[in-house]
Amino acid sequence: MTALTLADCEARDRTDPLAPLREQFLLTPGRIYLDGNSLGLLTRAARERIRATVEDEWGVDAIKGWHTRDWMGLPDRVGARIARLIGARADEVTVADSTSINLFKLAASCLRAGNGSRRKIVTELGNFSTDVYVLQGLRDLLGPQVQLCAVPREEVVAAIDRDTALVVLTHVHYKTSELFDLAEITRHAHAQGASMLWDLSHSVGALPVHLNAARVDFAIGCTYKYLNGGPGAPAFLYVRKDLQEQLPAGIAGWLGHSKPFDFCDDFEPAAGMRRHHCGTPGILGQASLDGSLSVFDQVDMQAVRQKSLQLTQLFIDLVEQECAGHGLSVVTPRSPERRGSHVSLRHEHGYEIMQALIAREVIGDFRAPDVVRFGFTPLYTSYVDCWHAVSRLRDVLESGSWQVADYRVRRAVT
Amino acid sequence: MTALTLADCEARDRTDPLAPLREQFLLTPGRIYLDGNSLGLLTRAARERIRATVEDEWGVDAIKGWHTRDWMGLPDRVGARIARLIGARADEVTVADSTSINLFKLAASCLRAGNGSRRKIVTELGNFSTDVYVLQGLRDLLGPQVQLCAVPREEVVAAIDRDTALVVLTHVHYKTSELFDLAEITRHAHAQGASMLWDLSHSVGALPVHLNAARVDFAIGCTYKYLNGGPGAPAFLYVRKDLQEQLPAGIAGWLGHSKPFDFCDDFEPAAGMRRHHCGTPGILGQASLDGSLSVFDQVDMQAVRQKSLQLTQLFIDLVEQECAGHGLSVVTPRSPERRGSHVSLRHEHGYEIMQALIAREVIGDFRAPDVVRFGFTPLYTSYVDCWHAVSRLRDVLESGSWQVADYRVRRAVT
Repeated sequence: MTALTLADCEARDRTDPLAPLREQFLLTPGRIYLDGNSLGLLTRAARERIRATVEDEWGVDAIKGWHTRDWMGLPDRVGARIARLIGARADEVTVADSTSINLFKLAASCLRAGNGSRRKIVTELGNFSTDVYVLQGLRDLLGPQVQLCAVPREEVVAAIDRDTALVVLTHVHYKTSELFDLAEITRHAHAQGASMLWDLSHSVGALPVHLNAARVDFAIGCTYKYLNGGPGAPAFLYVRKDLQEQLPAGIAGWLGHSKPFDFCDDFEPAAGMRRHHCGTPGILGQASLDGSLSVFDQVDMQAVRQKSLQLTQLFIDLVEQECAGHGLSVVTPRSPERRGSHVSLRHEHGYEIMQALIAREVIGDFRAPDVVRFGFTPLYTSYVDCWHAVSRLRDVLESGSWQVADYRVRRAVT
Repeated sequence: MTALTLADCEARDRTDPLAPLREQFLLTPGRIYLDGNSLGLLTRAARERIRATVEDEWGVDAIKGWHTRDWMGLPDRVGARIARLIGARADEVTVADSTSINLFKLAASCLRAGNGSRRKIVTELGNFSTDVYVLQGLRDLLGPQVQLCAVPREEVVAAIDRDTALVVLTHVHYKTSELFDLAEITRHAHAQGASMLWDLSHSVGALPVHLNAARVDFAIGCTYKYLNGGPGAPAFLYVRKDLQEQLPAGIAGWLGHSKPFDFCDDFEPAAGMRRHHCGTPGILGQASLDGSLSVFDQVDMQAVRQKSLQLTQLFIDLVEQECAGHGLSVVTPRSPERRGSHVSLRHEHGYEIMQALIAREVIGDFRAPDVVRFGFTPLYTSYVDCWHAVSRLRDVLESGSWQVADYRVRRAVT
């Protein structure tokens, strides 16, 4: 195999059908941003949408904005935009609260709905921690109503049995980028009579998801990663249409009521996804997300997935070509069908190496104890970005520039 | 008593020490905005703070903003600003989620902490509905662990007994503006061995609250009313310092963990108020609120209260002077020590009258079946505003302009 060159990367950018989308993002010249899997970049559309929401809507209409701008309907309109990206119907997705709160609500709701005498929730140890914490907290709150079975990844499938009420898994692993086979595991959970909840935080906007095709029961996910909704943007939740009416609200609040403005004393759940709203939606966060999603309206998720796989493959190939012999190993699966849209490398001095890279304007991140992560966002990452990122990584490793005292001190206090 | 005149109102505005603050708000010329008890107006400070957060922070620093701008610490910094307004220590208040979610978290936390064999939660029927719904949902989720005792206002005190674990009440009633005696009821709850949680949604920013002086255990509240945080701005929660370490997280999430970035598998609560965070804070909402609170940094809450009482008294006096004989009655207590910062009037055709007022740029709101509300926000409401509001109300009543068919149709479909 002949060596990859900068010219190869430039050639790929020239024929990349998604390349024009890059102009819709506010990129910092000279910086290679490979952390869109943690916080996506600001779009021109979101910037303008926020400005208009503040100045033209809140600033002019004030309270009337709830009607004149239909702020009340915004969470469902934004949810409908997300639905298209995850293979769901428009009325199966809404935007509310955080991923953690949404997991709590749906897990509590599922337990309240009941599934015979089943009390067991199966989940993965070593998954992104909030999912495990939420379920631990729910178990501690409910007591013997719940048995939490959190097991290592390779034991998950075997743990799903006839006592299992709910399986909670994350589609793309936050650390390794490894994919679960969503359809296959959902099928297995259903065969055991359990409900299936997928956390799509590291999938949505990075690869196509087919919730309806797999008959997934519940899903949640984050919107500030590949969807570029902004820091701490509100999260989404999905409930399959035929389950919606039988499912109680996990946390009952006034905006989940069928007639919130009647202010009556007894909770009566709204139809559909509305019952999963509690308090008043945060309109600035919703508007920012609505703006950023307009970029997605123009793209085909298959094209996004194709470019994502090409970017991650190129990055892995370049790391092997340029950085061999420096103690790096690739954590992320090499098999495309098992890989999400970020690449994780392991190195004993991963923290210091990432600090040195950031100083050279290659922005990735570090996950303890020794993993560096690089996220590839097909809407604004170029193939030439991959080249320069690896080139700077090689410089850092060859020059030993990561061995500065300051980085070691910073790690000690982190 | 001689009749009040426009000149009297003008004279009061000239000597109003808070009058200069009006310039910090973006007011619509010709409009009298009396709905700050529902959605506060945009400030110049919030507008600029949001712009900077979007363009200079997210747009430039991206992921680094969590450190360079200390987004992670923002909820506590904003909480500290609110603490001063409610008689709490800076480390007793933080900003997270919605009022509904915060009530759920603190009530669940209080029940998990346990108080002997007590299972009873006492609350008021006819209070703002979300508080009742949240507690109903918690009861339905926890089953026999919880007994919810929701009683009419006049029966609340008697319902607090030796079986009561928690009392949940709202300080200023959303509909009538009637105040509970916060110190007296807290004392009574404590005498019975119960914990006390106050919802300060209609108090914070409108009148001084003395949580520490009354040794209140828990409080929650809304920031988009008198604090002007913006539509759906995040809510706050308070836990008295000496209770903080013994209290589990009501909903466990990664940002409530003592070491969130260790991503370990077992939840271990953070110290202090941090354990009550779950997901990633919504930075746009937090920043907007932070900006709007800068206006409060300059004011003394006693001065705010004084002006609030003068505005509400003037409005009631003017309504009686100008609008007698039209079937209006004053719902709000006339006694200042029992009155919040909005005034509610009852009229059989309240809905239509409010529609006619809004058409004349007097913005209040309507609460079914027959109450119209007018909120007085001492930071931007003037005495002359009261004059013109009542003058237009009189015109509406005298001319019968509310009797247009369109308003009746709209009411029927609301």
